[in-house]
Amino acid sequence: MKLYGYFRSSATYRVRIALALKGIPWDTVAVDLRAPVSAQHSADFRTLNPHGLIPVLLDGEHALTQSLAIIEYLEETHPHPPLLPRPPLERAQVRALALAVACDIHPLNNTRVLGYLRTQLGQDETGVQAWYAHWIARGFAALERDVQRSSGDGRHMFGTSVTLADVCIVPQMANARRFDCDVTPYPTLRAICAHLENLPAFAQAAPGAQPDAPKG
Amino acid sequence: MKLYGYFRSSATYRVRIALALKGIPWDTVAVDLRAPVSAQHSADFRTLNPHGLIPVLLDGEHALTQSLAIIEYLEETHPHPPLLPRPPLERAQVRALALAVACDIHPLNNTRVLGYLRTQLGQDETGVQAWYAHWIARGFAALERDVQRSSGDGRHMFGTSVTLADVCIVPQMANARRFDCDVTPYPTLRAICAHLENLPAFAQAAPGAQPDAPKG
Repeated sequence: MKLYGYFRSSATYRVRIALALKGIPWDTVAVDLRAPVSAQHSADFRTLNPHGLIPVLLDGEHALTQSLAIIEYLEETHPHPPLLPRPPLERAQVRALALAVACDIHPLNNTRVLGYLRTQLGQDETGVQAWYAHWIARGFAALERDVQRSSGDGRHMFGTSVTLADVCIVPQMANARRFDCDVTPYPTLRAICAHLENLPAFAQAAPGAQPDAPKG
Repeated sequence: MKLYGYFRSSATYRVRIALALKGIPWDTVAVDLRAPVSAQHSADFRTLNPHGLIPVLLDGEHALTQSLAIIEYLEETHPHPPLLPRPPLERAQVRALALAVACDIHPLNNTRVLGYLRTQLGQDETGVQAWYAHWIARGFAALERDVQRSSGDGRHMFGTSVTLADVCIVPQMANARRFDCDVTPYPTLRAICAHLENLPAFAQAAPGAQPDAPKG
């Protein structure tokens, strides 16, 4: 499989974790979000994905978009190890934890939105940082309460094994730290991420381990 | 089942459509987003959902959150009629269309975000409207290109029957119209929504048909 993405992109990072957990090898096609005209917006890339967003996973000739749709596809086509429990109620709980990141936190804090705040709304870095921290704090405070109920061991978001919820929290925690958000109020989330980040699949998928990451 | 929501909430609207399509009766518990202290933020409601967000679906004693997680749960527990095709590749395509609404458009334009623009960023209604229209235009332009490939009949987002993607586009189109966004550049999306809105399940789920909608 071929993964179009960017080492720092949180949504790409999720897909990398899922691929690594399932033992599926992939080739990276780097899409540099920092380029003067972002490669995401090139005509070629938009033919692959009209939304001009990463990640895109090429499975043979099929271009798949949207990180969570890609991961559900991997779950259905490569069921082992599972990233979702079997009982529908538990699957719903795991998906809700994942969507709390993917719908309620990440979309507000991604590159294009921060760009709008800077250019169209004239926000300086203090304003952008406050915006970023606001949505992290709202989302993480609620997730901290969630996982106090849903985690089975304080090392996973749900139960006692790795799920889709873990795949989503680790990249979001990495982003929160990169933007200097205060994560001390979320000890359970921090403990979960500390455990997960040391697992081989998560380490293999980490931004710094990618071929398009700056060296050193 | 008991659905905590608000007649105008786009995410609640999605769940109502799914319930109606599957013929599952529900009781509405109105959570008024316009109240001076929004009922979403009450301590009672936060016990049900620490995120303080609607919708919440109560199935017996189980509180389910996140509209897409709820709909996948309904799909798994009430499989007929299906809202997802069977082949994994097609499921991924439908989910990607749904997530393009749920992750890339809706989160930027919901009540709490518009509130932040007004209060913390001092935007007037012109600024808020420009923000709203910007994300609608970006998302809808890409979705218009998507559905030109994925729709089988110009009346459904994917193939020739109702899917999760249709469940998501109709509430988003209703919101775009409510915010006076120009939707003329998206003739395929408009034709799809015009068809869907007339189906009995969609009509039953429409904001104006809910018990908490203003009369007349």
